[in-house]
Amino acid sequence: MGLIFISITSFDMKIVLAQQNYHIGNFESNTAKIISAIRTAKEEGADLIVFSELAVCGYPPRDFLEFNDFVERGLQCIKEICAEADTIGVLVGAPSINPKVEGKDLFNSAYLLYEKEIKGVVHKTLLPNYDIFDEYRYFEPAYEWNILHFKGKKLAVTICEDIWNLGDNPLYRVCPMDALIQQSPDIMINLSASPFDYVHAAGRKSIVKQNVAKYKLPMIYCNTIGSQTEIVFDGGSLVMNAQQDIITELPYFKEAMQMVTFKDDGTFEEPVTLTADKVPLVQLLPQQFEANHGIDQIHQAIILSIRDYFGKMGFKKAIVASSGGIDSAVVLALACEALGAENVRGLLLPSQFSTGHSVSDAEQLSKNLDSAYNIVPIKDIFESFSHSLQPVFNDLPFNVAEENLQSRIRGALVMALANKFNLILLNTSNKSELATGYGTLYGDMAGGLGVLGDLYKGQVYALARYINRNGGIIPTNIIDKAPSAELRPGQKDSDSLPEYDVLDPILFQYIERRKGPKEIIAMGYDEKLVTRILKLVNTNEYKRNQFCPIIRVSPKAFGIGRRVPIVGKYLS
Amino acid sequence: MGLIFISITSFDMKIVLAQQNYHIGNFESNTAKIISAIRTAKEEGADLIVFSELAVCGYPPRDFLEFNDFVERGLQCIKEICAEADTIGVLVGAPSINPKVEGKDLFNSAYLLYEKEIKGVVHKTLLPNYDIFDEYRYFEPAYEWNILHFKGKKLAVTICEDIWNLGDNPLYRVCPMDALIQQSPDIMINLSASPFDYVHAAGRKSIVKQNVAKYKLPMIYCNTIGSQTEIVFDGGSLVMNAQQDIITELPYFKEAMQMVTFKDDGTFEEPVTLTADKVPLVQLLPQQFEANHGIDQIHQAIILSIRDYFGKMGFKKAIVASSGGIDSAVVLALACEALGAENVRGLLLPSQFSTGHSVSDAEQLSKNLDSAYNIVPIKDIFESFSHSLQPVFNDLPFNVAEENLQSRIRGALVMALANKFNLILLNTSNKSELATGYGTLYGDMAGGLGVLGDLYKGQVYALARYINRNGGIIPTNIIDKAPSAELRPGQKDSDSLPEYDVLDPILFQYIERRKGPKEIIAMGYDEKLVTRILKLVNTNEYKRNQFCPIIRVSPKAFGIGRRVPIVGKYLS
Repeated sequence: MGLIFISITSFDMKIVLAQQNYHIGNFESNTAKIISAIRTAKEEGADLIVFSELAVCGYPPRDFLEFNDFVERGLQCIKEICAEADTIGVLVGAPSINPKVEGKDLFNSAYLLYEKEIKGVVHKTLLPNYDIFDEYRYFEPAYEWNILHFKGKKLAVTICEDIWNLGDNPLYRVCPMDALIQQSPDIMINLSASPFDYVHAAGRKSIVKQNVAKYKLPMIYCNTIGSQTEIVFDGGSLVMNAQQDIITELPYFKEAMQMVTFKDDGTFEEPVTLTADKVPLVQLLPQQFEANHGIDQIHQAIILSIRDYFGKMGFKKAIVASSGGIDSAVVLALACEALGAENVRGLLLPSQFSTGHSVSDAEQLSKNLDSAYNIVPIKDIFESFSHSLQPVFNDLPFNVAEENLQSRIRGALVMALANKFNLILLNTSNKSELATGYGTLYGDMAGGLGVLGDLYKGQVYALARYINRNGGIIPTNIIDKAPSAELRPGQKDSDSLPEYDVLDPILFQYIERRKGPKEIIAMGYDEKLVTRILKLVNTNEYKRNQFCPIIRVSPKAFGIGRRVPIVGKYLS
Repeated sequence: MGLIFISITSFDMKIVLAQQNYHIGNFESNTAKIISAIRTAKEEGADLIVFSELAVCGYPPRDFLEFNDFVERGLQCIKEICAEADTIGVLVGAPSINPKVEGKDLFNSAYLLYEKEIKGVVHKTLLPNYDIFDEYRYFEPAYEWNILHFKGKKLAVTICEDIWNLGDNPLYRVCPMDALIQQSPDIMINLSASPFDYVHAAGRKSIVKQNVAKYKLPMIYCNTIGSQTEIVFDGGSLVMNAQQDIITELPYFKEAMQMVTFKDDGTFEEPVTLTADKVPLVQLLPQQFEANHGIDQIHQAIILSIRDYFGKMGFKKAIVASSGGIDSAVVLALACEALGAENVRGLLLPSQFSTGHSVSDAEQLSKNLDSAYNIVPIKDIFESFSHSLQPVFNDLPFNVAEENLQSRIRGALVMALANKFNLILLNTSNKSELATGYGTLYGDMAGGLGVLGDLYKGQVYALARYINRNGGIIPTNIIDKAPSAELRPGQKDSDSLPEYDVLDPILFQYIERRKGPKEIIAMGYDEKLVTRILKLVNTNEYKRNQFCPIIRVSPKAFGIGRRVPIVGKYLS
């Protein structure tokens, strides 16, 4: 990770933003990374280095915070980092212990370390507890606010959500900056762990700009990057001056460090305005489903997420059940890009119902990717099951039991290879299928990581086209043919589900925009269809409950960010 | 549901406690049940009827609360209930809308309905957000507190957690009763949805008693019953007078209504002291694992939970993969008790590694239960898989891949029967196995409901003995033999895991008591063993993440109440 200079002069305050990728609970590696950045910054004469929220333990640590042992390890790391903070100030995030008996036992804090001492600790006030966030589960909010004094400057330090409580319907009753501004700070510094979704980057710039406009102060905003199971952090740390110009913006989805010089007169040297004029002041989710929205960012997020999932879990190689369909093709292509084609294996599992082109398309794809594959037909195994089940099934007609059985035979085969050769199965289910329950538990719903689980079918096609932007990796035939599970003769997805260009927009209104049936029908969608689709979504929660983590790229993904009852009777 | 009279006199205030079982989101059924109770209470001359927390929508509604449509349906039901509240007062729980723009948009409220009007609404102050609870995700806490006036009495109404903030290390900074007591109320009334675990019932009586002692007022405490996916509510509503006598206690795990007469002088008529002297003032989780602790309550909770899961999901029949081992035997016996033996089918799936007694024991069990079973040997199917995989596996030795494959063949077979005959697969994994990852994803970890997933192996044995308390339902041989997965010749669980009487107590310290490695080792356990077990727990989170809902009977069950990162590096 190189240090990029934005400007250096004789005096004034040189501030480094360290945008790093942490590993939850890996205190040793996180601390080493933080100390390495401090040493680099010191060599370059920095006065202050800023890290992101809960950098020491990684974000989100979740219920690890319930272990005193875990919290104590974090405090120990703060001591180690403190020993490095001699002539340089360090602002770094870690949990701290609430000294009062009332309230929760921990704060989510930012430590100012300098002269080998803890010079100050500020606590997060606004604890997000929606979607994927659970902070009020662990932390007590701050009830008093004080600026930090450092080398003659007054720093108003806040943590992530603390700066987000603006707008017409604020989620919280207080804004910590409203208190801090009374103490005449010189600059705002925000330590964040703010995750990616395809509308978030623009929203983030907007909120920084709104804070700068409201408090008439410059802001240093330092975010983390990297993927933590299903949540991807995209970085995009930035510095904005009091005139709302973006002085510098760090890259997305990459570790980076940058130094800015904050002058005595409150300005920055050599401001580099990158995109300030383009920042919308309010960034909303689109009113309507748009399959192409942010597809390049989504691509980057998924690549980073696959890579981090394998890297942080200590895995190397992946396997994908390659059907010749669009979903598995996109997953295979993404896996090859993220892990290297030599670390990815396709497994073709044709049945008597597979069309000839399914196998040839899947073979062509692996050849295009220069990636290995095996073919294991499932016909004999299926017949063996049928024979063994005959005394129980007698002559009952072929139905969903036999369809699912084929899918489960495939699941067992791909897991057998995974177990034998130490491969991780990447799941290929998309959000449209998961929403409607169009998938087989323990069959095509098997896998360790849901690569496409937050992309509607239309977005999967958009991503396929994006992957093919520089030439035909995914064979055209795979993109052009009608989707089919191929579990009975001539089967098409559209036998069971509405066409995806009808289905996806309705799902988007219900899932992303939380519109109820009346509102969706009022948009002009057919009442029977809406009722049927919403019922499918709500009655299939039990299936999604057993699904693997899904890489989150939208503001509302299935998984930890969407918690609905399994046993319930709403719209079902 | 009959109305039981505790006492009736000429005047004074007659208060009915309605302890009911609701269905989340089933507004029609919940409202009908509430109205029916109101009519019964009116016939008996009651002045006031008290229901439980969020009775109208069911508890916990989770992310359904993010739909305006859902909230509006609840408000509509309040109107319908209001129309019944003419000469009788009704205290009932439902969400209400926060009129202020700041803060979250909803409150968790209790409505006082009387003379067909909403006479008052009080909001919950303390929003639990630990373990299975997520209330701060949805609700704004109350910031002002007012008693409700009703027929000349001043009611201090609180909601569930509001009365729990006592003790040496309170979780919240305020106690709403501290504010309400300033307004000289006559009586405290608490509407609860407080779930069962095997130490909770005693804890609940203790907290009611502590409130009565602190505020010197009688308390009406009304809880719900019934199971909501994994969470079981056990009822135990009660009335305590200001002298800390329990006037009446409603039954556990059953719907019930009782009426008490609260006299003008602040006493109750004919106090019936049931267990007041036995109530401990502090109820803690045992310091050490005790396999028999609360086993009778656990049995009741599981029976209710299976029955409610099926009833509320609209299912009738269950299937259990019956191995001849202790776990499946206990599940089969519980299923027969909960659903009726005629609605339960066992499936025996012997392999070449199954011992002869496995089949005969499992057959004897189904005969003892008078429940149907089928036998489908897996040998031929396994050979068919081996043959099809041979070109890929070549001559690699038999290992975990083939072991898991047998388990997955069983999973596919039992799911085939489930799909063909419309049965729900009950899972038999226990907490010791789930903790250590001793199970096969998509194999023995398959199923719709984890019946034993919150019981350590020692507790499963205790439950087996409890089931056999009136005679030998579960064959002695099943209870006496050494546990084995029977996936290779002569395999025993103890080849891979420590003996359960060593394993369970260590898991209990780590999972229930959140002790770190140093603390557990300091209790006298072997360091290497502790390190190995904690690593097993933390590296198998990815498996538990794909597991079905687990019936919760302990204060810390796997599932929604325990949220740890999958990708992480803590003790792993």
